[in-house]
Amino acid sequence: MSSTRRLRSLNIDNINPHVKEAKYAVRGELAIKSEEFRAQLKRGDPPTPPESPLPFDTVISANIGNPQQLDQKPITFIRQVLALLENPALLENEEALKSSFGYKQDVIDRARWLLKEVGSVGAYSQSAGAPGIRQSVANFIERRDGFPANKDDIYLSAGASSGVNTLLHVIWAKPETGVLVPIPQYPLYTATLSVLNARCVPYYLDESNAWSTELAGIREAYDKAVSEGTDVRAIVIINPGNPTGASLPEKDVEETIKFAAEKNLVIMADEVYQTNVFVGEFHSFKGVLRKLQKNEPGKYDTVELASLNSVSKGMVGECGHRAGYFELVGFDPEVQAQIYKFISIMLCPPVTGQCLLEMVVNPPKQGDPSFELYDEEYNYVKNGLKKRATALYEAFQQMEGVEVGEPQGSMYLFPTITLPEKAQEAAKEADRSPDEFYCLRLLDATGICVVPGSGFGQKPGTLHLRTTFLAPGTDWVGRWTKFHKEFLEKYR
Amino acid sequence: MSSTRRLRSLNIDNINPHVKEAKYAVRGELAIKSEEFRAQLKRGDPPTPPESPLPFDTVISANIGNPQQLDQKPITFIRQVLALLENPALLENEEALKSSFGYKQDVIDRARWLLKEVGSVGAYSQSAGAPGIRQSVANFIERRDGFPANKDDIYLSAGASSGVNTLLHVIWAKPETGVLVPIPQYPLYTATLSVLNARCVPYYLDESNAWSTELAGIREAYDKAVSEGTDVRAIVIINPGNPTGASLPEKDVEETIKFAAEKNLVIMADEVYQTNVFVGEFHSFKGVLRKLQKNEPGKYDTVELASLNSVSKGMVGECGHRAGYFELVGFDPEVQAQIYKFISIMLCPPVTGQCLLEMVVNPPKQGDPSFELYDEEYNYVKNGLKKRATALYEAFQQMEGVEVGEPQGSMYLFPTITLPEKAQEAAKEADRSPDEFYCLRLLDATGICVVPGSGFGQKPGTLHLRTTFLAPGTDWVGRWTKFHKEFLEKYR
Repeated sequence: MSSTRRLRSLNIDNINPHVKEAKYAVRGELAIKSEEFRAQLKRGDPPTPPESPLPFDTVISANIGNPQQLDQKPITFIRQVLALLENPALLENEEALKSSFGYKQDVIDRARWLLKEVGSVGAYSQSAGAPGIRQSVANFIERRDGFPANKDDIYLSAGASSGVNTLLHVIWAKPETGVLVPIPQYPLYTATLSVLNARCVPYYLDESNAWSTELAGIREAYDKAVSEGTDVRAIVIINPGNPTGASLPEKDVEETIKFAAEKNLVIMADEVYQTNVFVGEFHSFKGVLRKLQKNEPGKYDTVELASLNSVSKGMVGECGHRAGYFELVGFDPEVQAQIYKFISIMLCPPVTGQCLLEMVVNPPKQGDPSFELYDEEYNYVKNGLKKRATALYEAFQQMEGVEVGEPQGSMYLFPTITLPEKAQEAAKEADRSPDEFYCLRLLDATGICVVPGSGFGQKPGTLHLRTTFLAPGTDWVGRWTKFHKEFLEKYR
Repeated sequence: MSSTRRLRSLNIDNINPHVKEAKYAVRGELAIKSEEFRAQLKRGDPPTPPESPLPFDTVISANIGNPQQLDQKPITFIRQVLALLENPALLENEEALKSSFGYKQDVIDRARWLLKEVGSVGAYSQSAGAPGIRQSVANFIERRDGFPANKDDIYLSAGASSGVNTLLHVIWAKPETGVLVPIPQYPLYTATLSVLNARCVPYYLDESNAWSTELAGIREAYDKAVSEGTDVRAIVIINPGNPTGASLPEKDVEETIKFAAEKNLVIMADEVYQTNVFVGEFHSFKGVLRKLQKNEPGKYDTVELASLNSVSKGMVGECGHRAGYFELVGFDPEVQAQIYKFISIMLCPPVTGQCLLEMVVNPPKQGDPSFELYDEEYNYVKNGLKKRATALYEAFQQMEGVEVGEPQGSMYLFPTITLPEKAQEAAKEADRSPDEFYCLRLLDATGICVVPGSGFGQKPGTLHLRTTFLAPGTDWVGRWTKFHKEFLEKYR
C-alpha cells in the first residue's frame, strides 16, 4: 500500500453534505445491529470474538412496520392473482388451477383483466402507472369520499416514500423553502428535506390530547419560520399518525385545510394508515376538502392537496412490493406536467406492485367467489392488530415510568418513558441520548429492536420510543417487562 | 370562479427550477403523443374532433427499450419461480405443478430457496437487498471476471436508474461539481445532473470509429471544464452504448480507467447491456481494472468504480419489475455507509425484482431440468434481436441520406440523417429542431415512435435519431421506408 500514489476521489469530508446531514433512525444503528444479531443467531455457531453469546434466541424487529417479516400472512386472493400475472401460462389450464389449487373464477378473471391492462408485468408501463389501474384507484377514492376523482390526477409510485420524494422535489425552489412537518414525524420527511437542502419547519403535536394537531402551535411555528426568512410552501400531516398512532378527528382535518388555504400552503396528507383505525373513523383530506368546497363555494377552490396511500400498510402489509399512489387535487396543470416529467426519469413504478395496488383498492365484493375467504383473512389481520396493540398497551400500563394513550390507529405505540437520573448520567457517559441508551440496552438484553423518540423528534426534555405492535405472541412483551424492571433497578 | 380569492401556491415560475431544466426525451412529447394515438386506436370509434382518423392501425413504440411491450416473451424458468414466490401455497401440491403445468424440480427448489432467503416477497428486505441474493450477484461477477467480489459491496436497486440516482446524489457536493458524460448519452444522466444542479461535462464519442471513446476528446473536455472552475469528480461510460449501440474494445476500457486514475475520477460504468453484444465481446470495467491492478501493483489501488447492471435489458427484458444492482469497487467505507443510509430512506428495492435478478445472474445450468428450455428461449431472443438489428440496418442502408454503422450491441441503432434544406426550413418554421421535425412527421404518418438525436446530444450540425430494433416483423420497417421516400420527395 505504500506505493499508493493517490487518495480516493470521495471521502466523508467531500461528498454531498446534505446527504451526510440526513438522519433516518428507522434503519439506523439499532436496526443494523439487530440484523447482525439475527445473522449471528442464524449461523448458530459459538460466537467468533469479539462477539459474545446472545442472551436471547430471536430478534424482534419492532423498529419498522414490516408485517410480513413477522407472522402476517398475505391475502390469498391477491397472491393467487399475482402468481397468474407472473406466469400467465398457468391460465392455460384453468381446470387444474381450480381443482388442485382452489383458484376461484374471480381470481382468474381478475388476472386476465390485469394482463389486458398492463400487457406483461415485465414491460414498463406509462410513467404514472397503467391507465386502467389509475382508473381503479380513482373509483376507490370516489367510493371512499363520495366525490369524483380523475385517473389523470393519480400517480402510482414505488411505495408512498417515492411519492413524497417526488412532491418535495417539485415543491423545493431554494434553500429558504420550508415545509411544516409534525413532530414527532416519520423521518422520511426530515431526511428528504435534508437531502434537498430545504428547511424543516417543525410543529409539535399535542401529546396531552392524543397527539392531535394543535392549530395554535402550527400557527406559531409558521410565523416564527416566516420571521426568519423561510418561504413556507407546504404542510405535512400524517393521519393516522406515525409514530404517534393518533387518528385525527374531522375538526382537526378541517382546521388544517383552512389554515393551509389562509397561508397558501400545499397540503401533503400522508394517509398510508387509512384503514388502520381502531377508534373513531378515518377522515380523508380529499373528502373534507370537497365538503368545505361544497359548503362555501369559491373559498377553497385552489387549495392544493396531495394525498398519499400505500400497499405497505393497511391489512395487506405488502411492503416488499413497493407500491403506492398519490392523488393531486387543485394543482396547476403546468406543475403536473413537470411532476410527470420528473417521475418519467425513473421510468415507472414496479408493475407487479401496480397490479397489487389495483386489488387493494378493488378487493372481492360480497357475492364474489373469493369474498368469503378475503373477508375472513382481512378481519383476522385487523382483529390481530387490535389485539396486539391492546396487549402491548396493557403491558406498558404495568411498566413503571411508561405512559401511553390508548391505541387509535396505524401500527405503532409511542410511549413516553421517564428514566432515573442515574440512567441519564450513564447515557451521557456513553455519549448517547437517554432514549437511545435505553433502546440499545433493550436490544442487547432482549433482541427487541425499537426506535428512540429522538429518531422522530420530541419536545425537549421528553423521552419516547416507537414500537410496532406487529410481533406475534406475548413472549417478547414478557422479555421487555422483565428488562424494564431490571433496568430501573440497576439505575435507581 | 370569480370569487376565488387566492392563487395557487405552486406554479410553473416558482417550483424547483432544476426540475424544470431537466430534459427526458425518451418519455417526452413524442412518447406522450404516441400513447394518445394508441388510446385512440384502442377506442376504435370514429375520432372525436379535433382528432382526425389515423393513417395507421398500430403504434410502434421504438422510442424505449421495452422488449415485453413488443412481442418478447419472458423466460419460462424465471416466471415459473416468480409465480411460486407470489403464491407459495402452490408449493403445497408439487405433483399438480409438475403434471398439470410442466414445472420441473429445479423451479420448485429455486423457489423454496428464495423464499428462505427473503421470508416473503411482501416483506421489506435489508436496504441494499437480501444478503443471499447479493451473494448470488457477487458469485456471478466472480465467474464473469475471474476476480473476487464481495456481497457487501453490492447494492440492489429498482432498475439501474435508481442506482445512478443514488450515486450522483452522493458524488454531488456543490453546484460546481461536474461529471463527464458521453455525448450522445442516455438522458437519465443529464436529467439527474440537472435536478441536482450539477454540471454536465460532455465529451463526444467518435462516430467515425463506431462510436468508441476517444481519449483526446475526453481529455480536452476535462481540461476545459477545470479551466472553467468545474470540480470534475466522475466519468460516466455506457458500454455497450446507449443510444449508440457501440461495444467498446478492451483498449478503450483500459484507457478510460487510466485516465480516471490520473485525474482521480470515480468511474460510473453503465453496463446494463453487457449481454447484448453482437460483435466482439463484453469487457467489464471491473475485470479490466482488476487486471491492471494485478499487472501494476499499487498503481490503481484506490480507483473508485461503480458498475451498474439491470434485469430490464439482456435477454430477459424484465423492465416492469424494476430491478438492478451496482457494485462498488475501491470506495471509502465511510462513503459506503452514507450510500447505505441514503438508500435506506426509500427502504428497499422491490423484492420480487430482487428474486428475479437472482435468477438472471444464476440461471439454470447445463444438466438442470430447466436448462434446455431456458437455453432455447435465451438464444431465440438473442438471435431474434440480432436478426431484427440486421433487418433494420439493411433498411437504413437503402434509405437516402441515412448512414449507420453495423449493429454491435445494446438494443438501438443511432443513424445519422441528412435532411434537405427545405425540410430544415420547414422545421424552423414549426419551431422544431430538424431531427425532432422528422421524428414528429414519422410518428404522425406511420405510428412509429422514435427519439430525435437532440434528446441524447449530438455534435452541432449533425442529425440523428434513436430507434430500438425490438419491434417484430418487417411491416413497420416498410412503413418507415415508404415515409422516408415521401418525406424526401416533399422537401427536395
